[in-house]
Amino acid sequence: MAVEFHLEKTCRQTGARLGLLTTAHGSFHTPIFMPVGTQATVKTLTPAQLHELGAEIILSNTYHLYLRPGHALVAKAGGLHRFMQWPSSILTDSGGFQVFSLNDLRKITEEGVEFRSHLDGSRQFLSPELATEVQNALGADIIMCFDECTPYPADYNYAKASLERTVRWAARCKQAHGKPTEQALFGIIQGGIHKDLRAEGAKAMTEMDFPGYALGGLSVGEPKPLMYEILEHTVPYMPPDRPRYLMGVGSADALVEGVLRGIDMFDCVLPTRVARNGTALTANGKVVVRNAAYAEDFAPIEYGCDCYACQHFSRAYVRHLIKAEEVLGLTLISIHNLRFSLRLMADMRQAIREDRSGDFARAVLARLQS
Amino acid sequence: MAVEFHLEKTCRQTGARLGLLTTAHGSFHTPIFMPVGTQATVKTLTPAQLHELGAEIILSNTYHLYLRPGHALVAKAGGLHRFMQWPSSILTDSGGFQVFSLNDLRKITEEGVEFRSHLDGSRQFLSPELATEVQNALGADIIMCFDECTPYPADYNYAKASLERTVRWAARCKQAHGKPTEQALFGIIQGGIHKDLRAEGAKAMTEMDFPGYALGGLSVGEPKPLMYEILEHTVPYMPPDRPRYLMGVGSADALVEGVLRGIDMFDCVLPTRVARNGTALTANGKVVVRNAAYAEDFAPIEYGCDCYACQHFSRAYVRHLIKAEEVLGLTLISIHNLRFSLRLMADMRQAIREDRSGDFARAVLARLQS
Repeated sequence: MAVEFHLEKTCRQTGARLGLLTTAHGSFHTPIFMPVGTQATVKTLTPAQLHELGAEIILSNTYHLYLRPGHALVAKAGGLHRFMQWPSSILTDSGGFQVFSLNDLRKITEEGVEFRSHLDGSRQFLSPELATEVQNALGADIIMCFDECTPYPADYNYAKASLERTVRWAARCKQAHGKPTEQALFGIIQGGIHKDLRAEGAKAMTEMDFPGYALGGLSVGEPKPLMYEILEHTVPYMPPDRPRYLMGVGSADALVEGVLRGIDMFDCVLPTRVARNGTALTANGKVVVRNAAYAEDFAPIEYGCDCYACQHFSRAYVRHLIKAEEVLGLTLISIHNLRFSLRLMADMRQAIREDRSGDFARAVLARLQS
Repeated sequence: MAVEFHLEKTCRQTGARLGLLTTAHGSFHTPIFMPVGTQATVKTLTPAQLHELGAEIILSNTYHLYLRPGHALVAKAGGLHRFMQWPSSILTDSGGFQVFSLNDLRKITEEGVEFRSHLDGSRQFLSPELATEVQNALGADIIMCFDECTPYPADYNYAKASLERTVRWAARCKQAHGKPTEQALFGIIQGGIHKDLRAEGAKAMTEMDFPGYALGGLSVGEPKPLMYEILEHTVPYMPPDRPRYLMGVGSADALVEGVLRGIDMFDCVLPTRVARNGTALTANGKVVVRNAAYAEDFAPIEYGCDCYACQHFSRAYVRHLIKAEEVLGLTLISIHNLRFSLRLMADMRQAIREDRSGDFARAVLARLQS
């Protein structure tokens, strides 16, 4: 198998799991958060900075790289790791989420999805086979089945038809996968907010025996309690010896709630996206550093944080940079926000080791709401 | 004195000098290039990255910091070194150059210059006293007299009146300087392209006994050969035991030509400014990395360069970043361009040590034009 997953333990207090995931580019403990490097770069950061803040696996987007610079170019460069000089693990999504987000610009058939490029309006097409071929060319350690990300809300019949197509597409992806010993292809469970469909999706995917399974179509607009309910219902249908990946989740509360329900992997653009609005993530909630309130605040972004930004710079300086439209402001908040998210997961792992993940989660969630 | 300058040697082949300049924040050898951090940040780079690429002194702009975030705030933060977390030496200009660049937005009197802020159009005023007070508050190791940067072309009478006002203003700056034991105030020699005025300016400034002298009003549009002629004429009037600073010069050929004529310090926005157009500086001239010609060029920006960008990334990747409007593209080219400029000066220093600065300069200039 292209990846190995060793389940080290489950917390005695909750469903939280400690695992060790090994790819061709390294081993790391789960649960883990994956920073997003959409266009073969985690925005504003060098790989050296990403490494320094503790990232062990990052995500990159097939849709974007397919359109620019093109997977053939990345393959010529020696693959995505070499192209972007990220020596650790990489996961690529399948492009499904981005393509389906185009709404009026795409048309779904059994064969695949026809869409218009957000760059130049050109007519494009992605199918399970092509999405897999593109991901084979990019060469990430973990690749994803091409699925339809069922929107929220979606009625039962739509969600059912969508799920069943996603299952048929998954079989085609598996069939098309050209490098099964080098890259692990994960299945994606859809089903919207319909519990029996989620169960059906989990069973169908499990039967295809993927090395890992993702939950898709969550965190797409539904209330968080509903997402947690779906997690609680679906996770028991997923095999315990395979990593479980909740796609697109990255707020601190949802990371914690996901871990408690047995999720091992997460990704989200949130830490770097809010950085671009001058917003920092902290244990006490969001701090909008660009606000005038911080103009003469010489404290770090977050006391006690071990990141490069907090070890050196004041809120007043970061605010000055943001107001002056200096890139370094985005860089410093991105460093902090990613370090915050990665450290939260590291703390969570330690709590699982010590069978206190429930206590730890309660404390984190209480402080976030304070 | 706030700075000490030790002239270690003059090359036997040319007028090039090797010096050691010591400030409260460190010692460095001259000739040296100073990266520009206009708004208390060298664009797109962290201080750690700047340090790694070998910067020993940077320049920041009084005009910009006066308007935003204001010198009072920087003083409250503990001064500019602490505010921007740059532990090595800093030089601030006086704001004169920026204010005079505003053209229609400013009015000059004997008292000072009234101008409108480029940020909000508000009415502002800078005088020799205020520019010095602002620089005292910012706390740079080297500060500059408030001068009029005589434009090119300027007729003899204008240049003479302007020079004489600059001389009177220099006396007022010296008088106003509140921290002569902590910050070295350098005088600025103006005079346009008129040789007798340059001589007059140099003599008048030297009589005021500043710890260092700058040449202003050059590299403002005049042909380069004319600038070199003015340097050759003026430098002999400048005291050999004080550092000589040619303001606003940063192209590789002008750096070399300046060093040959006895200049010790240079600053310029060029390396970071052209980076924002996707242009890299190399020993063979400029490389416009954003051009399609480099789409599949997997060579580094410059072979043999020891910078982080060239040690890791291909032109194809950097071009992808630029086309995709990713900040990392600017960061990587800025790192390279600054390292290129700093290494050129380091190589020049070594050539002076070995009495071969003329040979070295000839080789550099020939390769640039190839």
